[in-house]
Amino acid sequence: MVFMNIDVSEGYRLKSTLSGEVYPFDRLEEFAGNGESLEVSRISSRQPKIRPGDHLWERFAGFLPFDDPDPAVSLGEGDTPLLASGAFLAEYTGSRNLWLKNETVNPTWSFKDRGTLTTMWMSRQMGEKVTATISTGNMGHSVAAYAARAGLQAVVFIPDFTPREKIVPIALHGAHIIRVKAPDYAGMKKQILEMAARLGLRIVSGNGPLRVEGYKLTAFEMYEQMKGEVPDFILVPVSACGHVRGLFKGYRELYEAGYIHRLPRMAVVQASNNAPLAQPIQEGKKEIVPFTEIDTIAEAITTGNPMGGEEIIDKARRYGWPAVDVSEQEILEAQAVLARAGLFVEPASATTVSAVKKLISRGSVQPGQKVVAMLTGSGLKDFDVFKYHTLKIHDCEMQNLEQTLEEIIP
Amino acid sequence: MVFMNIDVSEGYRLKSTLSGEVYPFDRLEEFAGNGESLEVSRISSRQPKIRPGDHLWERFAGFLPFDDPDPAVSLGEGDTPLLASGAFLAEYTGSRNLWLKNETVNPTWSFKDRGTLTTMWMSRQMGEKVTATISTGNMGHSVAAYAARAGLQAVVFIPDFTPREKIVPIALHGAHIIRVKAPDYAGMKKQILEMAARLGLRIVSGNGPLRVEGYKLTAFEMYEQMKGEVPDFILVPVSACGHVRGLFKGYRELYEAGYIHRLPRMAVVQASNNAPLAQPIQEGKKEIVPFTEIDTIAEAITTGNPMGGEEIIDKARRYGWPAVDVSEQEILEAQAVLARAGLFVEPASATTVSAVKKLISRGSVQPGQKVVAMLTGSGLKDFDVFKYHTLKIHDCEMQNLEQTLEEIIP
Repeated sequence: MVFMNIDVSEGYRLKSTLSGEVYPFDRLEEFAGNGESLEVSRISSRQPKIRPGDHLWERFAGFLPFDDPDPAVSLGEGDTPLLASGAFLAEYTGSRNLWLKNETVNPTWSFKDRGTLTTMWMSRQMGEKVTATISTGNMGHSVAAYAARAGLQAVVFIPDFTPREKIVPIALHGAHIIRVKAPDYAGMKKQILEMAARLGLRIVSGNGPLRVEGYKLTAFEMYEQMKGEVPDFILVPVSACGHVRGLFKGYRELYEAGYIHRLPRMAVVQASNNAPLAQPIQEGKKEIVPFTEIDTIAEAITTGNPMGGEEIIDKARRYGWPAVDVSEQEILEAQAVLARAGLFVEPASATTVSAVKKLISRGSVQPGQKVVAMLTGSGLKDFDVFKYHTLKIHDCEMQNLEQTLEEIIP
Repeated sequence: MVFMNIDVSEGYRLKSTLSGEVYPFDRLEEFAGNGESLEVSRISSRQPKIRPGDHLWERFAGFLPFDDPDPAVSLGEGDTPLLASGAFLAEYTGSRNLWLKNETVNPTWSFKDRGTLTTMWMSRQMGEKVTATISTGNMGHSVAAYAARAGLQAVVFIPDFTPREKIVPIALHGAHIIRVKAPDYAGMKKQILEMAARLGLRIVSGNGPLRVEGYKLTAFEMYEQMKGEVPDFILVPVSACGHVRGLFKGYRELYEAGYIHRLPRMAVVQASNNAPLAQPIQEGKKEIVPFTEIDTIAEAITTGNPMGGEEIIDKARRYGWPAVDVSEQEILEAQAVLARAGLFVEPASATTVSAVKKLISRGSVQPGQKVVAMLTGSGLKDFDVFKYHTLKIHDCEMQNLEQTLEEIIP
């Protein structure tokens, strides 16, 4: 499985998403010099075509910047269900056309795996032996698993407040875990990125341009599942921004290639307690509102000041994307409501269902419009939140089993 | 989504698996009068045909006893990856042809969902409003989720030693949880089954005939994924027996219908501390060896005296199925080894990888023979076991970050 030493920069380059500055495709740092997010840009103006193939990435290979994506690196991510919401959620949200894209059934049980696959392909293509990330959760788990599969060494930097149950999977996958005692998480991140650039180590981030290419595949999969129909809105829990960017870029490229004739609108969903993008978008402002005190049960979406996040504010303005922020109480309620519809997701994912309800009650989304809510991570990912739910349990002794049952179900 | 009142017994009946006694298809109890396991048997001798269709269950509808399976009940179970093991596991096990069927990416992150779908179809077909099960784990979670999706009431009986983190998902899905204070689990089960039969309540068990029909679909999916090739061995962690029965029944029906020309051999894998079937099969005995003291980290496979388990001992003798039991230390090691290959599974699933290694070293399986190990449940399902793993973590302060990194990766 050794990669040829291909000239990876031949057909592609990286473009900063606001100023349009151009960088080589094999740039090590995942952001532009001025901190803007980067995206992969095709040099040729010839539009790609969907081809036949067993795997999603084969059919859409023309849309991807990899010369020879190695199937052996895959853990079987994708092929996730797109489910009709059912009557219970329709009633709760007010939407008559709500769909759930269940990304919790990926190999490490979160959407991250799609983007990790493509960053691994990039590492292989670049001949890297080591890959690294900074994470307390889903990202670290996903990178550790795929590095194990790909035979790369993984380094995962974690802050010292990371709970042990989040560390176990990362450690078992064989990643080198560096637990950093740092007064502030943002400062720690900055210093690690500087050090890595100096040492020539790629730090894969939630908003890197290659990761975004992986999330494009989710859009392509939805395009196939909906047989070419374009949803009106796609609701995405937003933290580092990679997921929402990738989904939109996938649809944009399908549009540019003539496969679809309009674009879906993304909806930016965040917790009210950590809404650095949802807040300015709703207020019509252009700047990120940094959150330093982050106190939300939606742990998977807690980037207080997302690098490159200005792109999302800009796109929201240009394309008319709504934003929603969701309170802690609403998140808990939505987690329970989704479970009552058969889907057990982490709090970050539950935000989308609250958001549908709010957008419909605001009149921003019509009840009949086709809406897709992204369910990003499994409910098993976050045990901390369990303590906030009141459980109704019927205790009984053997001798009054029948009586208890008859009280419950008359 | 209301079902017609169809005569469900028309084309099918239930047959006890050893004595061949026949029962009506709509029998409420999931076992024969003499305690034997039951299986669905087609009355017509006309063999079914695979047809075109989007869903697995549409293509194989002819093999299933449902007149009108309702897609709305599905949570998108199945379509799980069949992965080549990769070099690391090949070296560990000695198998050059090892494949992993990753059932941890089902909607509730275990294989149970396949069988729960078909029991829900049966409940719908029978016009039942309530479904019930006895469980401490994966089964309760799966039944609660699907009942929520199908709009049925679920009752889940749990013993009073069930940890809170196992109860939370079941409760959030809206199931009625009856926590029974009972001196012994087996006695509790027996009493609940008797009461349920008296009250006309169906208790779905891990070894019910309708559940087995769901696991057949896994065999059909593997048949498609392998493009008709039949594996030499399929290794299954065995507890209630439904999974191993369903996988085999699926292949047997493909054989009878002329789609394949030989049968795979199943391998019965259990923990040494709870090996009521693996022990007698290895010793060439005909009777279950009941385990009363169950003390294994493989919590998902702890049926000390599986109802209907004699069928498996009988089939092992007739079809030459090997059995393996795996020690606690081997299970922990296998869990870590699988994680090093990119797959984080619960201890019960890890037993299969130990088993491959043992069967190869015994000479029962040849290194080149095609072997499939079933990965039945997610590693996130069982936090208890985390404490047994020693984690290697590099602690450091901000100022010696670079030094720490250079020590790890010179």
